[in-house]
Amino acid sequence: MLIHEDRLFPAETAVRKIAKALYAQVRNLPIISPHGHTQAGWFAKNEPFPDPAKLLVQPDHYVFRMLYSQGVSLDDLEIGKAELKNPRKVWSIFASNYHLFRGTPSRMWMDFVFQEVFGLEQRFSAKTADLFYDTIVEMLKKPEFLPRALFERFNIEVLSTTESPLDSLDDHKAIRESGWKARIVPAFRPDSVVDPEFDGFSQSIHKLGEQNGEDASTWSGYLNALRKARLRFKSLGCTSTDHGHLTAETADLPLSEATELFNKVFTGKADKRQQALFQAQMLTEMAQMSLEDGLVMQIHPGSTRNHNCKLYEKYGRDVGADIPRPTNYVDALRPLLNRFGNESKLTLILFTLDESTYSRELAPLAGHYPCLRLGPAWWFNDSPEGMMRFRQQVTETAGFYNTVGFNDDTRAFLSIPARHDVARRIDCAFLARLVAEHRLDEDEAFEVAYELTYGLVKKAYKL
Amino acid sequence: MLIHEDRLFPAETAVRKIAKALYAQVRNLPIISPHGHTQAGWFAKNEPFPDPAKLLVQPDHYVFRMLYSQGVSLDDLEIGKAELKNPRKVWSIFASNYHLFRGTPSRMWMDFVFQEVFGLEQRFSAKTADLFYDTIVEMLKKPEFLPRALFERFNIEVLSTTESPLDSLDDHKAIRESGWKARIVPAFRPDSVVDPEFDGFSQSIHKLGEQNGEDASTWSGYLNALRKARLRFKSLGCTSTDHGHLTAETADLPLSEATELFNKVFTGKADKRQQALFQAQMLTEMAQMSLEDGLVMQIHPGSTRNHNCKLYEKYGRDVGADIPRPTNYVDALRPLLNRFGNESKLTLILFTLDESTYSRELAPLAGHYPCLRLGPAWWFNDSPEGMMRFRQQVTETAGFYNTVGFNDDTRAFLSIPARHDVARRIDCAFLARLVAEHRLDEDEAFEVAYELTYGLVKKAYKL
Amino acid sequence: MLIHEDRLFPAETAVRKIAKALYAQVRNLPIISPHGHTQAGWFAKNEPFPDPAKLLVQPDHYVFRMLYSQGVSLDDLEIGKAELKNPRKVWSIFASNYHLFRGTPSRMWMDFVFQEVFGLEQRFSAKTADLFYDTIVEMLKKPEFLPRALFERFNIEVLSTTESPLDSLDDHKAIRESGWKARIVPAFRPDSVVDPEFDGFSQSIHKLGEQNGEDASTWSGYLNALRKARLRFKSLGCTSTDHGHLTAETADLPLSEATELFNKVFTGKADKRQQALFQAQMLTEMAQMSLEDGLVMQIHPGSTRNHNCKLYEKYGRDVGADIPRPTNYVDALRPLLNRFGNESKLTLILFTLDESTYSRELAPLAGHYPCLRLGPAWWFNDSPEGMMRFRQQVTETAGFYNTVGFNDDTRAFLSIPARHDVARRIDCAFLARLVAEHRLDEDEAFEVAYELTYGLVKKAYKL
Repeated sequence: MLIHEDRLFPAETAVRKIAKALYAQVRNLPIISPHGHTQAGWFAKNEPFPDPAKLLVQPDHYVFRMLYSQGVSLDDLEIGKAELKNPRKVWSIFASNYHLFRGTPSRMWMDFVFQEVFGLEQRFSAKTADLFYDTIVEMLKKPEFLPRALFERFNIEVLSTTESPLDSLDDHKAIRESGWKARIVPAFRPDSVVDPEFDGFSQSIHKLGEQNGEDASTWSGYLNALRKARLRFKSLGCTSTDHGHLTAETADLPLSEATELFNKVFTGKADKRQQALFQAQMLTEMAQMSLEDGLVMQIHPGSTRNHNCKLYEKYGRDVGADIPRPTNYVDALRPLLNRFGNESKLTLILFTLDESTYSRELAPLAGHYPCLRLGPAWWFNDSPEGMMRFRQQVTETAGFYNTVGFNDDTRAFLSIPARHDVARRIDCAFLARLVAEHRLDEDEAFEVAYELTYGLVKKAYKL
Repeated sequence: MLIHEDRLFPAETAVRKIAKALYAQVRNLPIISPHGHTQAGWFAKNEPFPDPAKLLVQPDHYVFRMLYSQGVSLDDLEIGKAELKNPRKVWSIFASNYHLFRGTPSRMWMDFVFQEVFGLEQRFSAKTADLFYDTIVEMLKKPEFLPRALFERFNIEVLSTTESPLDSLDDHKAIRESGWKARIVPAFRPDSVVDPEFDGFSQSIHKLGEQNGEDASTWSGYLNALRKARLRFKSLGCTSTDHGHLTAETADLPLSEATELFNKVFTGKADKRQQALFQAQMLTEMAQMSLEDGLVMQIHPGSTRNHNCKLYEKYGRDVGADIPRPTNYVDALRPLLNRFGNESKLTLILFTLDESTYSRELAPLAGHYPCLRLGPAWWFNDSPEGMMRFRQQVTETAGFYNTVGFNDDTRAFLSIPARHDVARRIDCAFLARLVAEHRLDEDEAFEVAYELTYGLVKKAYKL
Repeated sequence: MLIHEDRLFPAETAVRKIAKALYAQVRNLPIISPHGHTQAGWFAKNEPFPDPAKLLVQPDHYVFRMLYSQGVSLDDLEIGKAELKNPRKVWSIFASNYHLFRGTPSRMWMDFVFQEVFGLEQRFSAKTADLFYDTIVEMLKKPEFLPRALFERFNIEVLSTTESPLDSLDDHKAIRESGWKARIVPAFRPDSVVDPEFDGFSQSIHKLGEQNGEDASTWSGYLNALRKARLRFKSLGCTSTDHGHLTAETADLPLSEATELFNKVFTGKADKRQQALFQAQMLTEMAQMSLEDGLVMQIHPGSTRNHNCKLYEKYGRDVGADIPRPTNYVDALRPLLNRFGNESKLTLILFTLDESTYSRELAPLAGHYPCLRLGPAWWFNDSPEGMMRFRQQVTETAGFYNTVGFNDDTRAFLSIPARHDVARRIDCAFLARLVAEHRLDEDEAFEVAYELTYGLVKKAYKL
């Protein structure tokens, strides 16, 4: 067996027993995936997934980063290629380097996919690479491995994708119109029309205006266009927006200054500082709109995008090594919170890549402001140790009820059950220790386990 | 039973056994409470405590913050009201939301108070709210629940309150003159006369001068007035001062610059930077005075006071959501340490809300400078996980003997035994692991447990 | 017994059993010490080590810092004296204060030295101080306690010292010429000729030029001189350079700016900022040279040197209390990484004293850039808890294979086996938990334990 029935549970017998009991209760609850990067098109078209390399290696930045860090060439992995010339070779490189992933969540997710999705129970290695490849190829041809079949088998109750305001959402419409009863919804992610550094920023704003029947070259027209775009998303089931900025900076400028700033960024005359200020202002504008239309707001700050210039130039976004940076929340969020912090009708979910903020800033903020909730351990911290640190450093100040369950945040559809399973196990392990140390009664732990798995995420994301 | 005999001890049998043995030795040692915010008036007047809501909810910012974060209105909790109109309703709101505190220290402290102080052993909830309310009301009327009786029952050897230099200290005098043999002493906390942002700053300085027979409108008169005020505190048993600044910044200006700076802040002409510099200078002045009069100095930096403007405007200080911020010590303390760092007669106790400084700055500083000691895990970190992180991140560099035992730092008098009990249990749990892993011999762990509970705090605070 | 056979292994029976099995395999592997501060002269001359105080107290900054922090005078410890007047008294002060080291790695290392090197199995204390002193004095006279004999007994396969580019390396030559077959190599540490604040900076550059037949008063001559100096080191077995800067800042200036900057710092006309920029530029230049000559590059940033001015003035470098500071890597390293980050032929090993960077910056950087590896927990973090945090916070993103095994980094030759033993035990304890929680298979854990102890360090340092 690749994966053990008791994996991730504490070794101490009494604690493990409690953890297993808690897990037994939540293990088979439906998956709520309120934030992620899968493609609606997969489910609209319901065509077979491609070969193992294209499916499991090429889109997984956790995987190719690690391989690259140890000298594997991205060209050999055919990163950035629309069609793989030699997927079996890519797969073989991955297999030969599988030891690099020891101790990482990628290893755990991948083994889960191999065993639970494809029934493979040998260890993945250079020796078994071909066997795995051929088995997976065969399986992917079968009807029960089509996207919709897997979606159902995975017991997914809701799946949110993440889309640009300019997206037609045709795939989402197609799913709805197909009569298939799955709940797949878009999240509204306006990078391309709020981040002045985004390629084609002004054109995108023009397009936003056109699509929404507004003159988006004016501040008020631009805001109205965004409002309408949000409603269009909402009409297709969207309940949330998402904002991925370099910092958590917010601003609350007077109308005249905001107008002037918009004119500057729109006409490309803004300097770096003004561009950042515009993004800061837009978070507050988005909070205002969320208060109006009820969309839950998510902020994912603190990633230095495209740190590796050479790779970025060659391969583009999402390959260029995003690296976390120190992130301030206590000052950065103040303008927004001064305006909307006391609104309990607004839900603003904060994420971080800077764990030093868990106990210092995030838990105290979420443990006070009615609008704030804490998203789960994110990205590099979406891992057994990372999740445990999140609970240990956040719970005592913010409690459980200011958190929002798990996000898989993944492009790797097949890994969704694996990721939720890790989260459920770690939460149960954390709770089991509280019970064993008499910090929480066992009946309460059962209630909390249910909330962490299913209740809180539905409530926080209004699903 | 609400609280378990073995709570907070590690689940592993062998480690738990050691922890229990260590705890048995320190469990009943007298409580030394060298820093906190109880009111001397309670013990001077010795009148019955008010109803449960006024006693246990209204003054406890841990409690009302959490309730507020989940949408409970502060008006419904009657925060800021001198008299509660409907204390039973406030109590009922607390009870109905008691699940929010799962996994937090508030829950643990409160359960301890219910069971150990009031003999209540059912779980607190909407269902038992009235029972708890009525029971507590009845008990508080009894003589054995009067402040002095509880003080004695709690086995408190010393209790320090925190007072302004302008305070008459009449309550402290009244206690002394009453013939009651308890040791209740004030700590000298000069915010109102060293923080230029404090309401009525200049008037307070005038008053300080008048009270101490000095012309406090001059730099030297001001310093002399402070010196005399300290001696007045000292004559009533005070052994420490306390300084709660936004940063840990210190300064050591030449006399002429300090004089000029004082004139600016005193006349309200200082800008933000100068106001901060004045506070920085005052830490060094206070260290100088401590060297003269022997008062132990405490610095509690890094809290962004009144983060929530709207609540601050409506409810005032201590409701407006203080939020921790990143805090630098290595550069900030250098001016003070350059002057007094090598004085082993000075004791300067450092606290932090920024745990990233434990291993990076605080332990290396305290593990070198003779004047420095580290205060215990503070405020948001005064919790089982927080205390454990403190020991884990501090001990290997600073050892045990550069720490100063526990501070409860509380306004909630009834919770004092609960808080000390948590600290004793966690210290024993930490030591038990060291013993079980053969990193410390058992006889040494017994000695250290005693020191962490009783010896170090008396020595550090000169009590 | 002073030290227990099972020390540092987790208390839980099943986990301990795995840890012991892993440790049994790596316990007796040869020691690779790729970075440290022992003196080649000891092995060149092979004379008896001095008395216990001079050997074990005076050079050990961990020891005298702790004693000083608790009021012991450095004069009483005869710090900074070439010859000790009263070594027995120094030894007795250490013994009387040995309790201060409870819970610190110094205690663990020292007990290991007492028991494993000198056969002393009683507890060190005021009572046994003389016994220990006399025993050690006697032993040090014996041939089996001469430096070379201990080196062999310690099973050291490679030992790297750290030397200035101006050093004659006569001791290293003498070792080679003596016919003794030990591998003792220098590392190239150019502080004195790249840090403009270093005493006699310009003279040192002149000397560097003279020694290497270059006109080092010009930028190109200076660089050539460094190149030649590196080759001289390399010819004596050197495989690495080491750079201990205040920050991790790097720069990549155009030739003309670099030239101008060099002229400024060389002629003493550079301000603080320019001095720092010069150091930043030199890291990039050193990376360039490493790419040419293959020397592995180490960066040890983030120590505020000589924090305690008074001690620094009186006792000089390495006594004046170096204190860690917050350290940024994500921005600081970018200029260097933009140029060389994708070179898998370059090896750049990063260290930190700021643990908040482990999961936030260092693991994501090392888990991407082919040239980067992470050095082990350093200095204040070279401790059981510190090492465990390193593995817990780094592994899930960077894996095991982007780390480089252990560095003892010590001046205290006798403690080298003790330090490596702690690292081996903690790594086995970490791996044992992964196995017990079914996060890693046992056969893989054996492979990884071997790599962490022996394989990775040899590969990373090209030894």
